[in-house]
Amino acid sequence: MNDCIFCKIVSGKLPCCKVYEDSDTMAFIDIGPIIKGHTLVIPKQHYDLVTETPADILQKLITSVQKVARAQITALKTDGINIIQANGKAAGQVVPHIHFHVIPRFNNDGHSRNWIPKSYADTNEMQQFANRIKKALT
Amino acid sequence: MNDCIFCKIVSGKLPCCKVYEDSDTMAFIDIGPIIKGHTLVIPKQHYDLVTETPADILQKLITSVQKVARAQITALKTDGINIIQANGKAAGQVVPHIHFHVIPRFNNDGHSRNWIPKSYADTNEMQQFANRIKKALT
Repeated sequence: MNDCIFCKIVSGKLPCCKVYEDSDTMAFIDIGPIIKGHTLVIPKQHYDLVTETPADILQKLITSVQKVARAQITALKTDGINIIQANGKAAGQVVPHIHFHVIPRFNNDGHSRNWIPKSYADTNEMQQFANRIKKALT
Repeated sequence: MNDCIFCKIVSGKLPCCKVYEDSDTMAFIDIGPIIKGHTLVIPKQHYDLVTETPADILQKLITSVQKVARAQITALKTDGINIIQANGKAAGQVVPHIHFHVIPRFNNDGHSRNWIPKSYADTNEMQQFANRIKKALT
């Protein structure tokens, strides 16, 4: 897409600090890292969302994500890795070209994920959510 | 693994609100949802981390993640979806059996991801990180 900055990176119209590239995917450093070394992994072809990405491309993408995660562990001696992917503005997606964040994590690195679990009223309410999602799957 | 709660869910020793199952993967409702409908997708076989999971299993896993994400959009009429995966305690992993969180998101749903981008001193520092990770990939 002409106005997509990730498509411009793929085509070389915009620069990046490239980490990895194969026929279908590419990885480069996020210029606004949560933790330094934070890498984005994208398909070269443009798709907005994970739900719109063909299964074979998504499979290649997660394989590249795994390669980058392993390399971050080796190169940066991380204590952990977060893999994060956002679809839609409501989920925090800024660039509408599907991308996986691969984020190196260290003990006491100062990043809090703000993970605040809620609860269901009872098992029945939880089961109702399962049923609704399950029904949409079939 | 005997002491793994997700392995116990797979074997039926512990209950869950199941959303999806195929020969290699399983999805069920997270009992502590960030947003109600929050679903976990796991491989039936035990692997601690994404980096330890065989590529073919990881590919099946992300395909199941995609199916659940599509179903959440349809069933819950979400405005977005977050896909999150943690490796290691430093990254927030609580259960050491690889799992993807598929989290329905809505406009103004009250969840903040605490996404605070940092910056590199200059392009040279960013390139150095790229080089270190790239070197570990080859």
